[in-house]
Amino acid sequence: MLDYTNILSATGRNLRANEIRKLTALLGRGDVISFAAGAPSADTFPLAELTEIAAEVVRERGKFALQYGPTRGSSSLIEGIIATMKNRGVTCEASEIMLTTGSQQGLDLISRLLIDKGDVALVELPSYIGGLIALHNAQADFVGIRQDAGGIIIDDLRYKLEQAKAAGRRVKCLYTIPNFQNPSGVSLALNRRQEIAALADEFDFLIIEDDPYFELHFGEDATDLKPLAAFNPARTIYLSSFSKTLAPGLRTAWIIAPKELSAKLELLKEGADLSSSVFDQAIVSEAMRSGMVEKRLPEIRKFYEVRCQAMLAALDQHAPSGAVWTKPTGGFFIVMELAGAIDTTKLLPTAIERGVAYVPGQPFYIDGSGANTLRLAYSKESPEKISEGIARLCALLKS
Amino acid sequence: MLDYTNILSATGRNLRANEIRKLTALLGRGDVISFAAGAPSADTFPLAELTEIAAEVVRERGKFALQYGPTRGSSSLIEGIIATMKNRGVTCEASEIMLTTGSQQGLDLISRLLIDKGDVALVELPSYIGGLIALHNAQADFVGIRQDAGGIIIDDLRYKLEQAKAAGRRVKCLYTIPNFQNPSGVSLALNRRQEIAALADEFDFLIIEDDPYFELHFGEDATDLKPLAAFNPARTIYLSSFSKTLAPGLRTAWIIAPKELSAKLELLKEGADLSSSVFDQAIVSEAMRSGMVEKRLPEIRKFYEVRCQAMLAALDQHAPSGAVWTKPTGGFFIVMELAGAIDTTKLLPTAIERGVAYVPGQPFYIDGSGANTLRLAYSKESPEKISEGIARLCALLKS
Repeated sequence: MLDYTNILSATGRNLRANEIRKLTALLGRGDVISFAAGAPSADTFPLAELTEIAAEVVRERGKFALQYGPTRGSSSLIEGIIATMKNRGVTCEASEIMLTTGSQQGLDLISRLLIDKGDVALVELPSYIGGLIALHNAQADFVGIRQDAGGIIIDDLRYKLEQAKAAGRRVKCLYTIPNFQNPSGVSLALNRRQEIAALADEFDFLIIEDDPYFELHFGEDATDLKPLAAFNPARTIYLSSFSKTLAPGLRTAWIIAPKELSAKLELLKEGADLSSSVFDQAIVSEAMRSGMVEKRLPEIRKFYEVRCQAMLAALDQHAPSGAVWTKPTGGFFIVMELAGAIDTTKLLPTAIERGVAYVPGQPFYIDGSGANTLRLAYSKESPEKISEGIARLCALLKS
Repeated sequence: MLDYTNILSATGRNLRANEIRKLTALLGRGDVISFAAGAPSADTFPLAELTEIAAEVVRERGKFALQYGPTRGSSSLIEGIIATMKNRGVTCEASEIMLTTGSQQGLDLISRLLIDKGDVALVELPSYIGGLIALHNAQADFVGIRQDAGGIIIDDLRYKLEQAKAAGRRVKCLYTIPNFQNPSGVSLALNRRQEIAALADEFDFLIIEDDPYFELHFGEDATDLKPLAAFNPARTIYLSSFSKTLAPGLRTAWIIAPKELSAKLELLKEGADLSSSVFDQAIVSEAMRSGMVEKRLPEIRKFYEVRCQAMLAALDQHAPSGAVWTKPTGGFFIVMELAGAIDTTKLLPTAIERGVAYVPGQPFYIDGSGANTLRLAYSKESPEKISEGIARLCALLKS
C-alpha cells in the first residue's frame, strides 16, 4: 500500500478529528438519554409548510432554483437577512452579505482569508470545536481567553493581547460566540462587547462573531444580545444561520463582513464550491418571505426554554456537592464543572452504560483544561427525559 | 476606511477573479445568443418528478432529511454511486466515496489536501478555470501540458515531469478532465490513459481526474471513456457530479479516493462545512433509487448531440478561413482557434453588440497563450439559435 504522507500538504498532514462528531456517531442506542448532540430538535422543523414550499419552488421556479446560481447567494434571501439584522441592531447592505453552507463554511472561509501558519487566533475557554477546527486547518496558533458568567474576561483578553504583542506574535482575530455560547451557554455582557470592540481597534485584530443562537433567547428582551458587529462593524465578521430557527439540513447560513472583505470571501467561496445549494436557498427565501420563520420563533424559544428549565431544576435537585453549572438564558447548552479530579472523558462509557450521554468538556478547551467539565445539551430530549437523564447522570457522579 | 491588506493571509491577498463567472454575470440581454455559459440547459431538468420527490422527502423523511447529516454524505446515495461507477469500469467501496457541494468543492478540498505553497500542479492547456482557481487558492505553481485531438500529449507530459524533477520541484498532481473536456471538448485517448497511469507511479504524483461529463457521450459505446481511476486507483482521485445529469442547483457531486485519502478529505470537509445539503442529497438519492436518473440519460445525450451537430454544421458552413475547431463526441463545448493575431477578449464586446456571446479562450491557458481561441458552449440554445448565432459570430470574425 502506498504511503501518502509525502504527497500531503501541511494542512493534510495535520488534520484533527472532531471529538464531538466522532462521539455523536456512536450514539445509536435508543434507550440512552442523550445530552450529547448539540443539534436542534427535529420536532421544531415545520414539515407541513416545508413540504408545500419545496414542491412550489420546484414547480414554479425550478428552472432557476435547480440551475447554477450566484456565488454570493440568492438576492431575495439577502434582502430578508438585511431586515433580520436590523432587528438585531446591525445595519448592513447586500454587498456585505454572503450566503454559506452552514456557518461552518463561513468559519472555514474566514479562517483561510485571514490566517497564515503561525498567526494567532484568540479563542474562548471553552469554545466551539467546529470553529477551532476551521482555524486549525488554516494553521492558526491558539491563545485561550478565560470566561466567567459574563463571557470573556476583559482583563485576561488585554493581558493576552499585550503578551502576544511583546512576543512579536501577530494576533489576527478573536473568535467569539457571544450569545448562549456553545458549549457553555454563557452570554457576553453588553459592556464587555463595547470593550472588545475598542480593543480590536487598539490592537489591530478582527472579531469573528459566531452568532447562531441569537433568536433562541428565552426572555422577551434581546437588547443585551446586540452583536459586536453593531459596535465595530469595520472590525467584525459576523456569522449567523437558519440551522436553529428553520432546519440545519438545508445548510443555509450567512456572513456579514465589511464590503472589501466580503468581496474577497466571495472569491474564496467561488473556488470553494461556486455556490451553496441554490434550491435550499430558494426554499429558505420563500419561508422567510412568507413570514413563517419569524412567526415560529416564540414557539421555538418556548420549546427550548421548558427543556432548559427542566434541566436546571433537575440539576438543582440531584447535582453532586461541589458541582457548579452555567445558567443559560437561551440556546441549547449548559456546562457543568465537577469538584475534584473526575475525568469526564473516562467516565463517559460508564455513563452510556447507565443510559445517559453527554460530551466531555476537555476538547472545547484549547489549553488542555476542562477535564472535569461536561457539556449538557437540552435541545433534543423531552422535559421528562431530561429530568430522568440528569437523575441518572448525577447518581453516577455521586458514586 | 480600514486597509485590510496586512490582516489577510497569503491566500487572501492573492485571490483571483474567475473571468468566466464575471462574464456570464454580465450576459442579461435576451436578444444575445449565448455560447458563453457552460451550464446544462434547464430544459433537461425533470421538474415534475422533482416536485414530487422534494415534497415526498420532506413529508416522509423530513426529520432526517432536514437535520444535520454525516460529513461523508448519504449512505444510500453512496450505494447508488458505487453502482454507477461500476458501469464506468471503476470498482470502489463506500469508504472511498464522499459527497461534496458540486465538484468545485471536491477540487478545493483536494487542492488543500495536497498542495503547499510552491508545489507544482500539472494542468492541461487549456483547462477548467474552476479547477485552476482551487489549485491557485492552495498556492500551487502551475506547469501547463499541451494537448492535441487525443488530449494530453504524453511526450510533453514526460518532458515537463523530467524538467521539474531536474529542477528539484515537487510535482504533486496532474489535473485532468479526460472526457469532453471543459473548455476544449476533447477526450483523452484510451492508450494515453494507461500511459499517464504509469507515469504517476514513475514520477510519484497523484492524478486529479475531473469527470463531470462522462454520461454525456453521444455514441453508444463508452469503452474509450474509462476513467484513469480504473487504471491506477491508488494514484487517482476521481470526481464526478449530478450537475449535468440531474440539476446543478442541488450541488451534489462526489469524490472517489483511496481510503486513506478519503478519510483525510472527510476531516477536511468536516471543517469546511460539516456536510453538504442533507436535503438535496436525499432528493438525489431518491431520484437515483427510482431509476429516473439512469432512464433519462439517452434523452439528455440526444438533447446535447443535436445541438453539437447544429454547431458543427454551422461552423462548417460559416467559419472563416484558417480557423480550426474541436469535434466533440459528448459534453457541452467546442474550442475554436482563429488564424492570425485576433484577440478574442478584445472582440467580445463587439460580438455581444452583434447579438452573440462566447468565452474568450485565454483564461483557460495557464501559460498565457490562447488569445486567438474561444470557447463555444452549445448546451443552452436551441439548434436554430445555434445556427443563427454561429452565422452572426462568423460574419464578425470574417469582417
